[in-house]
Amino acid sequence: MNHGRFPDIIGKKKQGLALSDEEIRDMIADYTAGKIPDYQMSAMLMAICFRGLTDRELTTMTMAMRDSGEVLDLSEIPGVKVDKHSTGGVGDKATLIVGPMVAASGVPVAKMSGRGLGFTGGTIDKLESIPGFCGEISNREFFRAVRKNGISIKGQTGNLVPADKKMYALRDVTGTVDSIPLIAASIMSKKLAAGGDKIVLDVTTGSGALIGDLEGSVELARRMVAIGNGAGRETVAMITSMEEPLGFAVGNRLEIREVVETLRGGGPEDVRIVCTALAGMMLSLGKGISYEEGKEQALEALVSGRAYERFLAMVETQGGDVSCIEYPERLAIAEISGELLAEEDGYLAGVDAGRIGAAAGILGAGRETKESEIDAGAGIVMKKKVGDRVRAGEPVAVLYTSQEERLERALAHLRGCCTVAGEKPEPLKLVVDIIR
Amino acid sequence: MNHGRFPDIIGKKKQGLALSDEEIRDMIADYTAGKIPDYQMSAMLMAICFRGLTDRELTTMTMAMRDSGEVLDLSEIPGVKVDKHSTGGVGDKATLIVGPMVAASGVPVAKMSGRGLGFTGGTIDKLESIPGFCGEISNREFFRAVRKNGISIKGQTGNLVPADKKMYALRDVTGTVDSIPLIAASIMSKKLAAGGDKIVLDVTTGSGALIGDLEGSVELARRMVAIGNGAGRETVAMITSMEEPLGFAVGNRLEIREVVETLRGGGPEDVRIVCTALAGMMLSLGKGISYEEGKEQALEALVSGRAYERFLAMVETQGGDVSCIEYPERLAIAEISGELLAEEDGYLAGVDAGRIGAAAGILGAGRETKESEIDAGAGIVMKKKVGDRVRAGEPVAVLYTSQEERLERALAHLRGCCTVAGEKPEPLKLVVDIIR
Repeated sequence: MNHGRFPDIIGKKKQGLALSDEEIRDMIADYTAGKIPDYQMSAMLMAICFRGLTDRELTTMTMAMRDSGEVLDLSEIPGVKVDKHSTGGVGDKATLIVGPMVAASGVPVAKMSGRGLGFTGGTIDKLESIPGFCGEISNREFFRAVRKNGISIKGQTGNLVPADKKMYALRDVTGTVDSIPLIAASIMSKKLAAGGDKIVLDVTTGSGALIGDLEGSVELARRMVAIGNGAGRETVAMITSMEEPLGFAVGNRLEIREVVETLRGGGPEDVRIVCTALAGMMLSLGKGISYEEGKEQALEALVSGRAYERFLAMVETQGGDVSCIEYPERLAIAEISGELLAEEDGYLAGVDAGRIGAAAGILGAGRETKESEIDAGAGIVMKKKVGDRVRAGEPVAVLYTSQEERLERALAHLRGCCTVAGEKPEPLKLVVDIIR
Repeated sequence: MNHGRFPDIIGKKKQGLALSDEEIRDMIADYTAGKIPDYQMSAMLMAICFRGLTDRELTTMTMAMRDSGEVLDLSEIPGVKVDKHSTGGVGDKATLIVGPMVAASGVPVAKMSGRGLGFTGGTIDKLESIPGFCGEISNREFFRAVRKNGISIKGQTGNLVPADKKMYALRDVTGTVDSIPLIAASIMSKKLAAGGDKIVLDVTTGSGALIGDLEGSVELARRMVAIGNGAGRETVAMITSMEEPLGFAVGNRLEIREVVETLRGGGPEDVRIVCTALAGMMLSLGKGISYEEGKEQALEALVSGRAYERFLAMVETQGGDVSCIEYPERLAIAEISGELLAEEDGYLAGVDAGRIGAAAGILGAGRETKESEIDAGAGIVMKKKVGDRVRAGEPVAVLYTSQEERLERALAHLRGCCTVAGEKPEPLKLVVDIIR
């Protein structure tokens, strides 16, 4: 692209006109190559926030972003590879349960996962809270692990979708994060580069989700499904509730303990229901069976203990201390704890999941900047779920941290985050919608 | 301002909320000081393009821009100083006639003028096309010249409104030029810094104006008047027609010749009418008399030759060769010429002033970049005005340039720029509206 023309392209989007495939491809390639400066790209991104992108523009842009770097070739691994992505939530440990369920049912899981900024760590941070576990493995080791165990989860390599890295860093400091098409392009460019044949998206909705309102969550799901299908990868999105944290545990090691409990056939009911649904959909796509059949097979893998075996094998192959899985109490939890107490009698009617997540961050479970260290043992364990009876003075949650001062701040942040009602509330619907 | 907060301020504007006075002042100060990077400011400017600014935000922003640099103190010059600004047009030589008319009627004119990018030069470029004329004088010389002659016109000093310089350069390359509030802030910050007590704005409208449609021109006028009055300077805007070039001449020396002709009591009728209106309004504000009285005094200054004398005195004081004013044929015009011919018989019904301006630029009358040299003798002289009879083959305009190749390009650019009709069109209204 003649760089001098880019202001006109910005002007075109500003007026609400659709950009051509060539204009979009040149924009992404030139921005990644540093030929379009940040100050022009941020104006374009703001114009996109206001004017949006058509499905065609969005698919073209996402594929151009994918093509800005390395694209993983999973063809060495036999079978249909189904990738999964969650838009994130509080206590969202689903990948660590769903992956083993799917692998144990015969569909290979070769998954790249992110580290987390904000609240709590990402999936890789959670796995690396197991002593010895290594998420930074080479593609060669990754493929070998998948062939051996049917499953491996690794951190993203540096070379994947550099366009997204650059654009995301810019959006983060220019007030252009909350644009549904830009979020969709960011997520899907990474999914397309990660090489899966089919994609199941877990789009969370509610107070602890990236997008709080159902309408916005459905719109995000619809846009991502359109990109995936437009790029030739069958994609299904499940809208799942994030009105309260998923399960009881929030924080890296606390969540690993809950994962192990669930894989052993116990654990919180909501975790089991959501994970069975996601795994069922992945199996449905991977094996060409119905969603109902998929869910049955997934559940069977869980209750039979086969999913647990896959998890153990994965941890062992990637260097993790298996004794910490067999005896989860060996996963050290932070030593300072405090309780969040109910203020009145009644039924727990609502928990502000976003604030629970933020409090976990204050306790040390998350990263404030890319360089921050995570406190693997910090976090929160809910003692009550929405719908449970509570009595004034009874603990609703227990907080764990390594620094006294953080405990005070987190407790202050949580004041009023729970609603107590006289009547038992309607149960939350966990899988709210499925978008194909 | 904590720089880390600025993305939130961008987000606030993006959502359509009004910014506080403090947020706006910090933004302008920090951007000027380089504490807010271009990539954040361009996102903010794009959000302003979509969300606009309230009158309060706009006045606060404009005053903060004014305060980013030097503010001229004209109090050494006795009397009420009335400044004038035109949003620009093709063949717009009004300042050079209006200034002497006002000065000759007893209201001092201490005017800073810009150089032009684009079409043709600015007022200072036109004056400097007179051999020897110096627009780059010190403030001391400027004040002395005003006290002596009642009038001086000088180029803008480097230190005036640095915030606008920086913001304008950024807008120019980020597709954010065409925002009415941003245009209003840019113009008015310079007017407020230029120190006049009252301000008359000439807001042009039509094919050769910055804003082509009347609605947009009125909106720009309304916003600028609100800023001026909000900042405590009485401000009046006159909406004037720029459907065809003002007068006949377009190009620096060609326009000076027309200025001299007009100041000697001749010249094109539209020039006289528009200049009398603008000078009349300036006198009305400066002397506290009615607009009608102001126009009468302005016209008297013109026909009596007193305005011409002031112009001569100004040129002499600023080093210009007065013999070129007394004998305007001594102002050398470019040697290569060509004619634009009418294609059919009838009445000239329309002239695309924007294309006439662009063609003058092609001929060498304007600057393409800040570093380009202006060809003072290049330009266009219209031979017909809207409403005149034309015959096929008769010249509608004569083009002047120093380079043969430019003549061809300009003629090609002008093909079809004139409309000829069978019926005589309604005369154009020259002063379309007055906004107080």
